[in-house]
Amino acid sequence: MKEFELLEIVGELFGREALDVPAGKHDATFLRYGSEFLVFTCDTVNEITDFPKFMKPEEFGKMAVAVTLSDLAGSGAKPLVFLNSISMKNADQELFRKIMIGIKEWADKFGVKVAGGDIDFSPVLTISGFAVGSARKVITRAGAKPGDRLFITAPLGKAQLCLEMLKKGFGREELPYADKLYTPEPRIEEGLEIAIFANAITDISDSLSVSAHLLSRESKVKVVIDPEIDLSHLTEYVDKEKALELFLYGGGDYELLFAAEESEIGLEIGRVEEGNGVFLGRKALEFRGYSHF
Amino acid sequence: MKEFELLEIVGELFGREALDVPAGKHDATFLRYGSEFLVFTCDTVNEITDFPKFMKPEEFGKMAVAVTLSDLAGSGAKPLVFLNSISMKNADQELFRKIMIGIKEWADKFGVKVAGGDIDFSPVLTISGFAVGSARKVITRAGAKPGDRLFITAPLGKAQLCLEMLKKGFGREELPYADKLYTPEPRIEEGLEIAIFANAITDISDSLSVSAHLLSRESKVKVVIDPEIDLSHLTEYVDKEKALELFLYGGGDYELLFAAEESEIGLEIGRVEEGNGVFLGRKALEFRGYSHF
Repeated sequence: MKEFELLEIVGELFGREALDVPAGKHDATFLRYGSEFLVFTCDTVNEITDFPKFMKPEEFGKMAVAVTLSDLAGSGAKPLVFLNSISMKNADQELFRKIMIGIKEWADKFGVKVAGGDIDFSPVLTISGFAVGSARKVITRAGAKPGDRLFITAPLGKAQLCLEMLKKGFGREELPYADKLYTPEPRIEEGLEIAIFANAITDISDSLSVSAHLLSRESKVKVVIDPEIDLSHLTEYVDKEKALELFLYGGGDYELLFAAEESEIGLEIGRVEEGNGVFLGRKALEFRGYSHF
Repeated sequence: MKEFELLEIVGELFGREALDVPAGKHDATFLRYGSEFLVFTCDTVNEITDFPKFMKPEEFGKMAVAVTLSDLAGSGAKPLVFLNSISMKNADQELFRKIMIGIKEWADKFGVKVAGGDIDFSPVLTISGFAVGSARKVITRAGAKPGDRLFITAPLGKAQLCLEMLKKGFGREELPYADKLYTPEPRIEEGLEIAIFANAITDISDSLSVSAHLLSRESKVKVVIDPEIDLSHLTEYVDKEKALELFLYGGGDYELLFAAEESEIGLEIGRVEEGNGVFLGRKALEFRGYSHF
C-alpha cells in the first residue's frame, strides 16, 4: 500500500490548509461556503490499472463517474458537478464519443451536471474525474464512537471475484456479478440518507480492510468485524477461506462503510470499541487491499 | 487542431446541461450558487507533451497549478480550491514530494487552497489539475462588441521562442525567457481587474490565433489584429517573420486576451468589428496553435 506513504506527504504539506476537512483526512475535502459545505474530490482511472478485460468504452466513462462520485457518497454529499480530463492515444472520435456517452449516462443517473473537461495526448488512455458536491454538515470517517455498530451498504467481494475469474480465463458472460465489475454504481442516495444519522462514513474502494483501518485511525477507535459475516454470495463460487479473503481484501465494490448507533439500512458487520486497530473477531486484520503500485 | 473536433462532441453531449455557462463554450464553466457563481475547470499536463527539457519536478507541480488557474483567470474568477490527480511510474517519494512542493508554492502564491487529490499508477507521469473559483458575474469569450478594442496582458511568443531554442540545442541558462517556459504564472489578479470593465475575456494557452478565433466565434464578431504589433521582445533573437509566427501561433504564454471599450491595463493589439473571422490587418489568420495530437 505504497500510496499511503505518499498520502503522508500530502497530509504533511496540505493538512493545514484552511478547509473544514483538509486533504488526507477523508475521501473528500470540505469547505464551508455560505450556509452549507462544498465537498471536493478527484479520482483517476486508466486502461492499465483500472479497466478489466472486455470492458466497453462507454463503461470507461461510467467507471470514471462512479469512482469519483463514490467519494461524495462516502461524504454524505449531494453531487453538483462532474468534470473530466481525458488523455488519449490519438483523436479517435468514435472512442471519445463512446466514453463521453458513458459519462453522460452515469452523470444523469446519479444527478450530477457535467461541467466540462480537458483533452490531452497520452499513450495510456486515462480519465481523471473531478466532482464537487454540497453537504449540510461535515461527516467523515472520523467520528465513530465506542458502542456504535458497523454497517455496509451491501455484501462485498463481488467485483474482485469477477476480476479473478477473468484472470482465470472466464468470459464476461460467465461472471456472476459482471455489473458490479463493469458498471459500478456510487451509493449517492444511501450516502445522503446515512449522513443524517451515522457518526462516521467512508466509501469502500480499495477494500473493507483499508476502509476500516482508515476509519479506525481517524476516529481513534477499535473496529471489530464479526467473523460470522454472511459470505453466501461468494461461497457459491469459491471456498469459504477464499470468500473471506475477497470480502475483506477485495477492491472495486464502491459500497459504503458506516458507524451508527443503529441503522435501518445496510448490513451489520461488526462494532466499534474503545482502543485502536481493526480485528476480525480477536484476530488483527492486515492493512491490505487494492494498491496502484 | 484535432481536439477541436472532439470538443464539438463535448458541446453536442454536454452543451445543454443546466449551467450558466456549459461545457465547450469557454475556458471554464459557470454555475450560479447562492448570490455568486462557482467556476469550474480542469487541465492535464504530462511528461510527454507538456514538460520541456530540463524542467525540474517542482516545476511540474507549478505548471499543473498555472495551466489550471489560467482558465479561472480567463473567467475573471477568484480561485477557491485546487485539486490534482497524479499518475506516476512508481511510488517515488522524493519525486512526489518535489512535485507537491511545487504545487504548494504556486497555490500559495496565487491564493488557492489545495483541497486534495488522487494518486494512481501510469508509465507516463501525468498531473491533472482541477480548480474551482468564484465570480460575481459571468464573463466569457462571448460578449465582445463591434467597436471594442482588443488587448493582451503582456507580449506573446516568449515561451514558444524558448521551447524552439531548446530544440535547437540551447541550454536552459541560455534561454532569454526561461521563467515564462518553466514557471508560467496565471494572470489571476489581472483577470479579476479586467472582469470589472471588459466585455469578453479568455486565456491564451494554445496561441493568440486560437484564442482570437474562439472569441470571434463565441462573440459573433470579426477580430482584427494590428499588423504593426511590437515584436521587439522577439526580434532580438529571431527575424521579423519568425517573430510574428511566434507571437500569433506560439503556445504556453498563459496571458489573457480581452475586449473592452478601453483599458488602462494590457497592450492594445487590435479591434473588434462587425462580421466574423480573425484577421491580421486584411489577411485572414489561420486557426492554428499548439495541438496535443
